[in-house]
Amino acid sequence: MKTVVVRNIKRTDADLVKRLGALGVATVHEAYGRFGLMKPYLRPVWAGAEAVGTAVTVLVHPGDNWMIHVAVEQCQPGDILVVGCTADNTDGMFGDLLATSLMARGVKALVIDAGVRDAKSLREMRFPVWSKAISAKGTVKATLGAVNVPVVCAGINVIPGDAVVADDDGVVAVRRKDAAEVVAKGEKRQADEEGKRKQLAEGVLGLDMYNMREQLKKAGLVYLDAADDD
Amino acid sequence: MKTVVVRNIKRTDADLVKRLGALGVATVHEAYGRFGLMKPYLRPVWAGAEAVGTAVTVLVHPGDNWMIHVAVEQCQPGDILVVGCTADNTDGMFGDLLATSLMARGVKALVIDAGVRDAKSLREMRFPVWSKAISAKGTVKATLGAVNVPVVCAGINVIPGDAVVADDDGVVAVRRKDAAEVVAKGEKRQADEEGKRKQLAEGVLGLDMYNMREQLKKAGLVYLDAADDD
Amino acid sequence: MKTVVVRNIKRTDADLVKRLGALGVATVHEAYGRFGLMKPYLRPVWAGAEAVGTAVTVLVHPGDNWMIHVAVEQCQPGDILVVGCTADNTDGMFGDLLATSLMARGVKALVIDAGVRDAKSLREMRFPVWSKAISAKGTVKATLGAVNVPVVCAGINVIPGDAVVADDDGVVAVRRKDAAEVVAKGEKRQADEEGKRKQLAEGVLGLDMYNMREQLKKAGLVYLDAADDD
Amino acid sequence: MKTVVVRNIKRTDADLVKRLGALGVATVHEAYGRFGLMKPYLRPVWAGAEAVGTAVTVLVHPGDNWMIHVAVEQCQPGDILVVGCTADNTDGMFGDLLATSLMARGVKALVIDAGVRDAKSLREMRFPVWSKAISAKGTVKATLGAVNVPVVCAGINVIPGDAVVADDDGVVAVRRKDAAEVVAKGEKRQADEEGKRKQLAEGVLGLDMYNMREQLKKAGLVYLDAADDD
Amino acid sequence: MKTVVVRNIKRTDADLVKRLGALGVATVHEAYGRFGLMKPYLRPVWAGAEAVGTAVTVLVHPGDNWMIHVAVEQCQPGDILVVGCTADNTDGMFGDLLATSLMARGVKALVIDAGVRDAKSLREMRFPVWSKAISAKGTVKATLGAVNVPVVCAGINVIPGDAVVADDDGVVAVRRKDAAEVVAKGEKRQADEEGKRKQLAEGVLGLDMYNMREQLKKAGLVYLDAADDD
Amino acid sequence: MKTVVVRNIKRTDADLVKRLGALGVATVHEAYGRFGLMKPYLRPVWAGAEAVGTAVTVLVHPGDNWMIHVAVEQCQPGDILVVGCTADNTDGMFGDLLATSLMARGVKALVIDAGVRDAKSLREMRFPVWSKAISAKGTVKATLGAVNVPVVCAGINVIPGDAVVADDDGVVAVRRKDAAEVVAKGEKRQADEEGKRKQLAEGVLGLDMYNMREQLKKAGLVYLDAADDD
Repeated sequence: MKTVVVRNIKRTDADLVKRLGALGVATVHEAYGRFGLMKPYLRPVWAGAEAVGTAVTVLVHPGDNWMIHVAVEQCQPGDILVVGCTADNTDGMFGDLLATSLMARGVKALVIDAGVRDAKSLREMRFPVWSKAISAKGTVKATLGAVNVPVVCAGINVIPGDAVVADDDGVVAVRRKDAAEVVAKGEKRQADEEGKRKQLAEGVLGLDMYNMREQLKKAGLVYLDAADDD
Repeated sequence: MKTVVVRNIKRTDADLVKRLGALGVATVHEAYGRFGLMKPYLRPVWAGAEAVGTAVTVLVHPGDNWMIHVAVEQCQPGDILVVGCTADNTDGMFGDLLATSLMARGVKALVIDAGVRDAKSLREMRFPVWSKAISAKGTVKATLGAVNVPVVCAGINVIPGDAVVADDDGVVAVRRKDAAEVVAKGEKRQADEEGKRKQLAEGVLGLDMYNMREQLKKAGLVYLDAADDD
Repeated sequence: MKTVVVRNIKRTDADLVKRLGALGVATVHEAYGRFGLMKPYLRPVWAGAEAVGTAVTVLVHPGDNWMIHVAVEQCQPGDILVVGCTADNTDGMFGDLLATSLMARGVKALVIDAGVRDAKSLREMRFPVWSKAISAKGTVKATLGAVNVPVVCAGINVIPGDAVVADDDGVVAVRRKDAAEVVAKGEKRQADEEGKRKQLAEGVLGLDMYNMREQLKKAGLVYLDAADDD
Repeated sequence: MKTVVVRNIKRTDADLVKRLGALGVATVHEAYGRFGLMKPYLRPVWAGAEAVGTAVTVLVHPGDNWMIHVAVEQCQPGDILVVGCTADNTDGMFGDLLATSLMARGVKALVIDAGVRDAKSLREMRFPVWSKAISAKGTVKATLGAVNVPVVCAGINVIPGDAVVADDDGVVAVRRKDAAEVVAKGEKRQADEEGKRKQLAEGVLGLDMYNMREQLKKAGLVYLDAADDD
Repeated sequence: MKTVVVRNIKRTDADLVKRLGALGVATVHEAYGRFGLMKPYLRPVWAGAEAVGTAVTVLVHPGDNWMIHVAVEQCQPGDILVVGCTADNTDGMFGDLLATSLMARGVKALVIDAGVRDAKSLREMRFPVWSKAISAKGTVKATLGAVNVPVVCAGINVIPGDAVVADDDGVVAVRRKDAAEVVAKGEKRQADEEGKRKQLAEGVLGLDMYNMREQLKKAGLVYLDAADDD
Repeated sequence: MKTVVVRNIKRTDADLVKRLGALGVATVHEAYGRFGLMKPYLRPVWAGAEAVGTAVTVLVHPGDNWMIHVAVEQCQPGDILVVGCTADNTDGMFGDLLATSLMARGVKALVIDAGVRDAKSLREMRFPVWSKAISAKGTVKATLGAVNVPVVCAGINVIPGDAVVADDDGVVAVRRKDAAEVVAKGEKRQADEEGKRKQLAEGVLGLDMYNMREQLKKAGLVYLDAADDD
C-alpha cells in the first residue's frame, strides 16, 4: 500500500449524482447490471437515512482512525466519505466530532466498513452513516493508510469520485464513467415499474404480466392437487 | 426435490388462527411445548409489525426468486408466504412489486429465510415482512423450486396450511392439527400470567410465587455474605 | 464454578454512578483508558434506552434462567442486572414478568449475554435491556449457576457492585474503586470536547486543531495530485 | 413438541443404503434434484471420515444431552444417530463414552447440529462424527426432547429411517421412499462423469463438451481483447 | 486499563499443573463444576497439539502486538502465554520469530484471542498454539496494553498464574487456589469413567448404568410404536 | 457489470512470480506494505497446499458457476483462477471435473470466495484450492458474469495478471507493476529475519533486539511487582 493522499480527484457529474439519488439503491443496482452493491451488513445508524454523493476514499488499519482525520481536508460539498479497513474491525472510528467537521465542509454522509460511536448524536445531527457496527471502542492515531486511492469497502472496490447512493436497502457505488448510462437505464426502469405496480395492485398476476407460464412449463413445472390425507 | 406446485392445500381453521395471533409468539411457542420457533436471525423489516395467517410455502435456490412469483397465484386472503432457501443467501428476493401483488390477494405477511429490498416502501405500505437480511441485491428467474411442499425456514419445517404467528419476538409455526390444543393451552397460560404479573408488580418474589426455595436448596445452592475486603 | 449467592455486596458510590451516567458510554470508556467496553453485539432492545446503575451479576447456563429468578431478591433500587452465560446462547431468558419484578424493586436495567423476549412489552414498560438477541425461545429452571460472583459478560469481567453505563453506543463497566478517577477524567474530557466541537463546526480542521501535520509528515505521508487520465 | 420415543421405525432398504454410500454426498445430492444437503457448517471431526446409514433422530434442547442417552436404545446396527437442537448451541453433547455405547450397538456415525468433545478419542476410535463445533462444554440431563420424530438438523428435515450419507463434502439425507430412484439416477450420473473426466483430462474444454458456446452467445456474452495500457 | 507489567506473579504448583494436563480439557472442565472453558472458536493451529502450563497474561489492542514482545521477558519455563484483545480481531499477531523466542524461554504454548501466522513453521517447530484465526496480516507496535493483569480471553477471565490446559477439545483455565480440588475431583472422575467405558463397550445401556429410566418416566416420557403408514 | 470475457491479458513476469512464491504469503504481505491480503476465512481445502501464479479472474453470481467454465479457456500454464461472487455464497461451485480440466491446462490453483466440493478428490489430485467453504451444494449455469475484469475476492480487488501467492497463512495478491519492488523488499526481509531468528533462539529478547525499552518507557509503561495477597 502506498501511504499517500491524492488531491484534486475527478468527481462524477453533479446532475448525474442527483438523479442517481432520486432512483434509490435498488434501482441503481439493477440498472448497473446488478453490480456495485456493498454487502448487506452495512446498515444505516439511524432509520430513514438517505444520501447520495461522490466518494472520497480512505483506507485505515484496524483500531486506527488517523487517516479519517487526514481525509476530511480532501472533502468538498457533495462528497461522501467511504472508509475501508485492511482487516475486519468493529471499533468506533468515527463519532460526533468528526461528523461536525464533515458537516461543516458540506459532506453528505459516511460509509464505513467498521464501527462508529455517538450514535444518538449522529441521529440528532441528522448526519447519515452506514456502518458495520455501533461501538464506543476508541481508536488510536498511529499508523498511516491512504486517502483517495481505490479502496474495497464491504466487498466493492470504490474509485475516488465514484457516485455513491445509500438508503434503507444498502449502499451502491457507480463508476464516474458509467453514471450517465446507469441514470438512463434506471430512469427507464423506474417508469416501467410504475405501470407494473398499478397492474399488480389491480390483481394481475406476475405470472401473466411477465409471461412466465410458458417458460415454467418448459422448465418442467408440474401442478398437483393436495392429497386428501385428513 | 420435486419441482411441483401443490394446489388446494388444507389450511388451519380461521378462528384458531385468529386466536393464535391474539396470544403472540412467545405464548404460542410455550403452549406448543417450546416447539415451532424459527431461529432468531429472522427479524421484522419494520418495527411493530405483527401478523398471523396460514402458510403457503416456497422453496427457492440462492439468488433466484422465480418460485415466489409462482407462489403468489396459490395465495388466498389470510395466508402468509413462507420462503425457505436451499442454501444460505441474503439476496433481496422480494420487494415492493411483489408486496403489492400479495396485498392485492389479501396476503397478511412474508416470512423469508433470505433477504428483501425496498425496505422503506414495505414500511410505508405496512406490509409485514420477517427476513434474514435487507439487501438491494437483485435475483434471477432461472431455476425451478417448489410451492406448497414442506419447507424448512430458519430451522423449522413448515407444512403448507400451518398457522404462522409473527411479531417482535420472532416467528412460530403450528401444525394444523395441533392448533386447537395450542390455542387452549395458550389462552390458559395467558390468563395465569395476568395474576402473576400483578403479584410481581406488588413486590412478591418469583422465588416465593413459584415455590423455588426448596428446590434450590435441594440442588445445593448456598448463600454467603460478601467478604469485607475493602 | 461455585453455585453460590453472595449477599450484601459493596456497591459503587451513588453520586459517582450518577455522574458516570451523565458522561455516557463513549466518554466513560475513553476516560477509563479505553477499557471496560462490552462487545458491540449487545444492543438495546428498544431505541433510545439509556441506563446507569450498580451491577448485580448472574451466571447462567444455556437454555436455563433459574438463577435470574434467584438474583432478583439480591437487587436493590439503582442496580443493573448483568447476566453472563457459560456458552453462547440466544434463548429468551427474560421477559415482561421478570421485568415487572425488577421494576418493582427499583432496578434500572438488564444487560444480558443471551436473548430476551416480550420485546414489545419491554418497550412499552420502558424497561431498558441490552441483549445479544431477541428470541421467544423459552428456558428451563433446572441447573444452578451463581449470583454476585465475577461474571464475564460480552467479553468484560464484571465484579458485583461495579458501575455499569449503557446507551446507544453499548455497555461499559467500571470497577468500584476506579469510579472516582474515571468520573474526574471523563468530566474533563467532556469539557474539552465542547471547545473542539465549536472549532470544528466553524471549519477548523482536525489536522490543525490536533497538530497532526508534523507527525504525518514524519511518518512518511505523501501528497500527490490525481493523474489526468480522462 | 411431543416428548415421545418412537420405536420400531421403518428403515431404508440396506442394499440401497449401501449403494448410496458408494455414490458419495455430492453425487447423491445431485441425483436427488439438489435436495437434502445439510448446511456446510457441519464438518467431520476427523479428516477422512465417511459413513452411510439409516437415521435414528433425536431432538434435544441447548445444553442438555439427556435424549441422546435415550436414543441409544433405539439404535440398530447400520443406523446413524441424527441430532437436532431447538436453538443454536455448541456445547459438547457427545463424547467417547457415548461413542463407545453406539459402537457396541453397531451404529455407523453421529450427525449433530451442536458440539462434541473427546475429539482425539473419537479419531482414535475411528467413530465418524459430523458436528457444528468441538467443545469440551458439558451438558445436563434435565429436560425431555424426543426420539424418532422428524427433526430439522442443519437445515434439513430428517425423517426416522431416512438414508444418511456423510463424507468430506458434508451430509445428505434421502427419504426412504425416494432412495431407489436416487440410487438409479446417481449410478447413471457416476458412469457419465467417468467419460467426462477422461475427456477433460485430455484437454477438451467444458465449453465444447457441454455445448455451451451457443447459449453463452445467446445470453449476450462478449469477448474482448485486453487494452494495451502498459 | 492500567498500562502496566506485573512481575513475579505467583504460579500454580507445578505438580498440580502436570496432573491437570494428564486429565485433559474435558475432564478438568467437568471437575471444575463446568467452569473455566474458553469459547470453542479457539482451535489448535496444528492437529494433535496438547499443552499445560501457567498463565502469563497479555492484553493487546486490535492490530497491535507490542505487548506480546513485552510479555516474553516475564515468561518462565512451564508458562503458557494467554493473550486477550480489547476488540474482536483476527490479525496475525504472532509468528515463528516470537515462537522461537518463547521456546528459548521454555514456554509451553500460546493461547490467543486473535490471529497468528507462519502456521506451517509453528507446526514444524511443534510449538502449540490455540487461536481464533490464521492470518498473515501484520501488526504494528504502537499502543500500550498490559502484562500479567487479569485478562478475558475467549470468554474466560484468566488470572496470571492460573493453570491452563489445552488440547483438541479446547482450552480451560483453573484458578491457582482451586487447582488441588480440581485435580482431586478430576482424577476420581477419570477412574470412574474407565469402569463405565468398559460396561458400555459390553453393551450395557447408559439408561440402565445411570439409572435414568425412572426419572424419564417421572418427567413424562412416553414410548410409542411407529405408525404403519406404508 | 459488463458481461464480458477479456482475452490476452498481461501477466506478471514469470521469474518474479516464482520468487514471490519462494517468499511465502506473510513475507510478501509485509513487503507489500501490509497490503493485498485476502480475508482469513479463505482456507486451504487440504493441509499443506502452497501455490503461486498469475490471476485469471472470474465474477459469478450466487449458486451459478457458468462463468468458471468460460474462464477455463482463458487459462494458461502458470495461472491461478480467482473467483469472486456478487453476494455471500457457500455453494460448491467447483469440483473434481473442473479441477481435472484446469490441471490439463497447467493451472496451479483455485482461489474462490465461495464453496467447493469433491474435497477428497481435490486432495488426492493434489490440486490446491483456497475456499470459503466446503459444500456439496450443486450450482446452475444460467446467468452471465465476467472473466478477466477486476474482481473483489475476499476483500481484495484482483486485477487480471496480478501475482497471487497462497499457503497456510492465506492468500495475497500483488499488482503486476509492483511485483519487482515487492520481490526486492521481501528477499531483503527474509535475509534479515534469519539473523533475528538465530538471536532469539539463543535467548536474546525482542525487547533488546528491536530496542523497544526506551519507546515503551516513553509511552508510559510501568513495571510493578505482584502484590503479596496470598
